[in-house]
Amino acid sequence: MHLKSKILTTTDFEQMDNLFKKTFFNSLSGFKSVNLIGTLDKFGNTNLSIFSSIFHVGANPPLIGFIVRPDSVDRHTLQNILETEVYTINNIKQDFYIKAHQTSARYPKEFSEFKECGFTEFYSNSIKAPYVLESNINIGLQKKEIIKLELNGTIIVIGEVKEVLLPEDLVEGDGFVNHEKAESITCCGLDSYHTTNILSRLAYAKPNKLTQKLK
Amino acid sequence: MHLKSKILTTTDFEQMDNLFKKTFFNSLSGFKSVNLIGTLDKFGNTNLSIFSSIFHVGANPPLIGFIVRPDSVDRHTLQNILETEVYTINNIKQDFYIKAHQTSARYPKEFSEFKECGFTEFYSNSIKAPYVLESNINIGLQKKEIIKLELNGTIIVIGEVKEVLLPEDLVEGDGFVNHEKAESITCCGLDSYHTTNILSRLAYAKPNKLTQKLK
Repeated sequence: MHLKSKILTTTDFEQMDNLFKKTFFNSLSGFKSVNLIGTLDKFGNTNLSIFSSIFHVGANPPLIGFIVRPDSVDRHTLQNILETEVYTINNIKQDFYIKAHQTSARYPKEFSEFKECGFTEFYSNSIKAPYVLESNINIGLQKKEIIKLELNGTIIVIGEVKEVLLPEDLVEGDGFVNHEKAESITCCGLDSYHTTNILSRLAYAKPNKLTQKLK
Repeated sequence: MHLKSKILTTTDFEQMDNLFKKTFFNSLSGFKSVNLIGTLDKFGNTNLSIFSSIFHVGANPPLIGFIVRPDSVDRHTLQNILETEVYTINNIKQDFYIKAHQTSARYPKEFSEFKECGFTEFYSNSIKAPYVLESNINIGLQKKEIIKLELNGTIIVIGEVKEVLLPEDLVEGDGFVNHEKAESITCCGLDSYHTTNILSRLAYAKPNKLTQKLK
C-alpha cells in the first residue's frame, strides 16, 4: 500500500461541501487545455467564453471536442453553436489570462464578452464566427456531433477544424505547433493559470528501445 | 483580418503529409492532461499506458472521461476496462516522464508495461486495478459509459471516481489539488512534455467586477 497517502473514498466524497468537491474534482486530473470559444447567435450578437475541457479527437478529419456542463454559464456558447453551427477556438496568452478568466462571469445574453472583457473580434472570409485578435492561434470549426451524457446531462460538442490562422513560425518542421513559443498558458481546476517550461520532445516509443529525447 | 497570420484551410489540410497532419492537429489545441492508466485483464495481467486526452466531466457524481483512438495502441486499456470495469488514473511526475512516454510503445499484450518500463504496481482494498507507486496522485475509477463517435470511430470512456489516494498536503483548504506541488507535468501534441509555473489563482468572476487574484 501507498502508506504516505490519504485514501479518500465515496463516503468522503459524499461528506464534502459542494464547492470544495467541485474544486477538488475539477483539479484532480491535472493541467488542461484552456481556450476562448467565440460564437454568434442567429441575430449576429457575439459571445466569448473560456473553456478548459477542450480535447483532441482526431486528425483525419481534424476533430476537436469540448464539454458543456449542464449548469454552466457556457450555455450561451452551446445555444449559439446550435443556431449557427460554427465557432472559433482561440488560444489564451499569458498577457491576457486575467481578461480571459473574466469571460466566465455570468453576463446576460445581450452583453458581449468581447466588449465587456476587452477583446477585439475579427472575421475570416469563410467562417461566420468571431475570432479573437489578441490570440495568435485561431481555429475555425463547424459543429459535427452533439452528445448528451445520460450520466449527468453534460454535453460533448465535436467540431471539425475548417480553418487555422497562426504565424508560420509557430509551426515546426514536423507539424508541431509550439504553444510555448505562442505564449499559450495551461490551467488547473477552475481558476489556476500556469505558464510552461519544456522538458523535452521525445522520439516515437518502440518496445525494444529506450525512449530518446528529440532535442 | 489577422495580417500577421498564415491561413490554412481544408485544402491545405488535405495536402499535408499524414504524419505532419497528425502532429499538427494533436498539438493545435494546446496543453493537455497527461496521465498513466492502469488496468488488469480478466486473467490478472497488468497493463499501463499513457493518455493525454483525459478531461473533467463532473463533480457530482465525480466523473472523468478519456479518449481511445481507433488505431491506437491503447486498445489493450479499452479491452481490459471492458473485461474488468475498473481502472486507475495516475499522475506523471517530472522525474519519470521519459519512462511514462515509453509505455506508448506497441508492447504485445502478454508484456506488462509496469515491468517493461520500470513501474511498481500496488493495489488498494477496494479497486481491483493496479495503481502506480511512483505517482503521488492515484485515482481509482469504475467504468460508467462508453460512447463511440460515428464520425471517426473514436471511443469516449467515462468513469466514476471511487477512490483517490494522495498526500494530504497536496490538497489546499478549498479543495484545490496542487499539481505543481505534486510535480505533475503537462504535455502538448504526441511527444512534448512540460513543467509549469503558476501565474495565479483567480477569484470567481462576476460581471460587475474586474477579476481579482486569489493569491
